[in-house]
Amino acid sequence: MNAPQSEFTYLFKDLPLALDSGETLCPVRVAYETYGTLNHDASNAILICHALTGDQFVASHNPITGKAGWWDRIIGPNKLIDTNKYFVVCSNVLGSCLGTTGPWEENPTTGKPWGVTFPVITVRDMVRVQAELMTYLGIENIFCVMGGSMGGMQVLEWMATYPERIHAAVPIATAARHTAQNIAFHEVGRQAIMADPNWHGGDYYKHNASPDKGLSVARMTAHITYLSEDALTQKFGRNLQERENVTFGFDADFQVESYLRHQGSTFVDRFDANSYLYITRAMDYLDIAARAGGRLSDAFKTAANIRCLVISFTSDWLYPTQENKAIVHALNAAGAPVSFSEIVSDLGHDSFLLALPELDAILDGFIASAAITRGLTDKGSLS
Amino acid sequence: MNAPQSEFTYLFKDLPLALDSGETLCPVRVAYETYGTLNHDASNAILICHALTGDQFVASHNPITGKAGWWDRIIGPNKLIDTNKYFVVCSNVLGSCLGTTGPWEENPTTGKPWGVTFPVITVRDMVRVQAELMTYLGIENIFCVMGGSMGGMQVLEWMATYPERIHAAVPIATAARHTAQNIAFHEVGRQAIMADPNWHGGDYYKHNASPDKGLSVARMTAHITYLSEDALTQKFGRNLQERENVTFGFDADFQVESYLRHQGSTFVDRFDANSYLYITRAMDYLDIAARAGGRLSDAFKTAANIRCLVISFTSDWLYPTQENKAIVHALNAAGAPVSFSEIVSDLGHDSFLLALPELDAILDGFIASAAITRGLTDKGSLS
Repeated sequence: MNAPQSEFTYLFKDLPLALDSGETLCPVRVAYETYGTLNHDASNAILICHALTGDQFVASHNPITGKAGWWDRIIGPNKLIDTNKYFVVCSNVLGSCLGTTGPWEENPTTGKPWGVTFPVITVRDMVRVQAELMTYLGIENIFCVMGGSMGGMQVLEWMATYPERIHAAVPIATAARHTAQNIAFHEVGRQAIMADPNWHGGDYYKHNASPDKGLSVARMTAHITYLSEDALTQKFGRNLQERENVTFGFDADFQVESYLRHQGSTFVDRFDANSYLYITRAMDYLDIAARAGGRLSDAFKTAANIRCLVISFTSDWLYPTQENKAIVHALNAAGAPVSFSEIVSDLGHDSFLLALPELDAILDGFIASAAITRGLTDKGSLS
Repeated sequence: MNAPQSEFTYLFKDLPLALDSGETLCPVRVAYETYGTLNHDASNAILICHALTGDQFVASHNPITGKAGWWDRIIGPNKLIDTNKYFVVCSNVLGSCLGTTGPWEENPTTGKPWGVTFPVITVRDMVRVQAELMTYLGIENIFCVMGGSMGGMQVLEWMATYPERIHAAVPIATAARHTAQNIAFHEVGRQAIMADPNWHGGDYYKHNASPDKGLSVARMTAHITYLSEDALTQKFGRNLQERENVTFGFDADFQVESYLRHQGSTFVDRFDANSYLYITRAMDYLDIAARAGGRLSDAFKTAANIRCLVISFTSDWLYPTQENKAIVHALNAAGAPVSFSEIVSDLGHDSFLLALPELDAILDGFIASAAITRGLTDKGSLS
């Protein structure tokens, strides 16, 4: 796969990026997209953070998939996040494969792709790159940082690491740490990739190969966790795939099998296997409370001035309500103004990407209210 | 792997076994273990049905793992299922690899291992073999058929197919059909096996190879579904494996990773990859109601005389209480005397294998009561 064309810049050219691992990276290429116009006092920027396999094309045509942006539904002129009013930024995360530096990119020292010699990164490292990008774009203080799933983890790291740089924050369907079950599912995916002989110890680029079968199995496994059992039952149940009866064989008799195989096989065309290893590892390492001695509220004690909205979904079993509530309780304890909404949805974790009127209403209300406290009135926002 | 030494017999020598697929098998080798003594009127037999990767060594030393039988805790002299009183039978299911005919065995027609030319089987086919074995052992009517997980599915097929041959039945932590999510997890496992180049299109026996990496990934995935999130959190949480800090690498930093890798790597020593494909397929095909026009109660309408105890566990998300309750409702509608117990356990699906006092008490009471209706008093049982 080739990284798609996107705006990009090189950051950390003078001072290298110091990673949580103790390693450094220099320079760091960042691919990003922007929508709308930054206002005169740079107070109308919304940073959208993407999920594990997401990308920077949040509200524009995706050149790889040929589809509309993944949150195009709510971001654009006169949409929920109105780009006539706000300046929206979305960048590909560090370690990914859609233009930002990651294991697929050439190591400037060796002239060869990094592969598994790329340093292991954390979600906080991703956020450090975003912070530098925002500075580069002239945005000292961000109106709102939002994102779902791993995007929500980045929002939490923003709150813990750069509280003085954000006015409002919306972590959705997320967690402040990966549980044993979260780690377990990721580990299965990684083992599937590494078991593929085409992985070549991570050095597949030079073999002109790619561990497509392993990556496909990894994606299939993960995909199950993105949907609720109800969603799978409603969508597929035991329906057969273009046949009247089971075939007594190992073809995809059931629609759910066909669907999963399709999810796996299309994923390998748009994602790099090593990036999958690195980003899942970053998520597994996430444990914001641990850095503060085990108390999440201590990690957020400098975040008391951030207006925050936490959203969870009833049928999300990947990052269930209890994990989101733990964030709310910690923010409450830290004295931050936090709202919480558990939205009833039977569509599972992926609910945050779907058209749910209640989600839209809650986001709309929160942004409107935060805009007032920010002094961003409809009339004056772009003046 | 080699099939362990066990008692065995060849069945279906004269009349072949007619399978649900329309294929036939002849002869069928069955490996089994028995405990206790059959009484004079052959009325004290208990048939134990094992789970997906289970075996016939339910209450005796397992020659492969070197461990005690998988339900040794409750079966034996003076134990809950007292082999001084009952004659316990457990056979390896059709399609498995521990002595009973399956894809690992030689096809008598070709002189080569069946591999994927072995006919696809169903849970009912497994039960047909068990029924023939019971006849061979001189048992026309079984006192009680019991089992958990896929063992419970066999119990349900016994009730639907041979209701006149059983007095009592105990399906535990099971379902009368596989849901889309159940199928999805199995499909991921199958794809992991088939993606392994050592699978050789199912013909690995002649290549002196085995798809260990793929089978290991399949087992790791399945294993996550056997435990609840709470169980994983209690057992491992985010504890690190023999280290103080994460290593910023892809080693098994977390105990849960190390545990899963161990589960995967030890499994390949005791199980055949093709058997895994066939048995998971049989489970996916299970839909007892479908055969009766979609109403489960119709499938059980000839089972009204069977005393039945259905047990589920609160934290079992593989075959949750609602699936077990569906069985209870169907049996109620069919007029069968059915008891139901949902046991509070945070240990997940595997609870049925674990030492839970409430489980033991319920089983004990049910068996004692069924023994009275059977006329099996303590004094007279072996007379």
